[in-house]
Amino acid sequence: MPSRNFTLQPVGTVRSDRHEPIDDGWDAIAAHIEIDAEQFGPEALYGLDGFSHASVIFLFDRVPEEEIERGARHPRGNKDWPQIGIFAQRGKNRPNRLGHTICRILRVEGLHIYLEGLDAIDGTPVLDIKPVMEGFMPRGELKEPDWSKELMRGYWV
Amino acid sequence: MPSRNFTLQPVGTVRSDRHEPIDDGWDAIAAHIEIDAEQFGPEALYGLDGFSHASVIFLFDRVPEEEIERGARHPRGNKDWPQIGIFAQRGKNRPNRLGHTICRILRVEGLHIYLEGLDAIDGTPVLDIKPVMEGFMPRGELKEPDWSKELMRGYWV
Repeated sequence: MPSRNFTLQPVGTVRSDRHEPIDDGWDAIAAHIEIDAEQFGPEALYGLDGFSHASVIFLFDRVPEEEIERGARHPRGNKDWPQIGIFAQRGKNRPNRLGHTICRILRVEGLHIYLEGLDAIDGTPVLDIKPVMEGFMPRGELKEPDWSKELMRGYWV
Repeated sequence: MPSRNFTLQPVGTVRSDRHEPIDDGWDAIAAHIEIDAEQFGPEALYGLDGFSHASVIFLFDRVPEEEIERGARHPRGNKDWPQIGIFAQRGKNRPNRLGHTICRILRVEGLHIYLEGLDAIDGTPVLDIKPVMEGFMPRGELKEPDWSKELMRGYWV
């Protein structure tokens, strides 16, 4: 089983109107990613504006180690929902504290990527950005339980 | 700009019939994720089988540091395609060497997650697994350039 650890260096930082971790209403929040100018030039983003959407991997760095869940819990602590394993929910208190979201690309300006739907607060370290391709979308019918449909109702709006 | 680095510990390992990095034909490859039994019990996966698809974040650990691209290049070295920034393509020789794929869940057995469409070779460290929810799919029309459509033609089949 794995024993090696890996060290990752952020490639950029989230710049957002939201400074506190709030779960819902992300559509109202303007945000962009600022790529680290000490590591990259604008050529690292060449062609990104040919895609409508980007996939962003970031790190929930404000979650303290002792709050990380390694077993099961009620999503958002809501006891109306079942006990769900941490790998079957998207809660931020997760091993490795990785976040992943698909955002709409509004525009790219130099080292700044302006996005719609980036659900990460100001200062969040960004670990990777990938273009979204049709061929990597889910194949076959998408199925999810009732609790996650309910949870998503207020997420964006 | 970001200066802190982060240390991540794999949560599991890819077990795959493919042992060498080959770009195409992933649909023929049987694969599963073995979750690290020293860190997790089966409760970490409770409810995952209620979802049809999982989102897997892994690490291309076989890519040597000196081969990492930080600027632009022709995807797959194909000069028929334009020079594209590393954050506008999915090539594995990327900063932080992170991979991300949405897979169909075939079944979950204890700490083993059997998947279809896991494009990572045997032994690949897995950093996170999340359920795929309709609400996190791309919103608005998906658009991509011609080169990425061409590249995807042989990817799965």
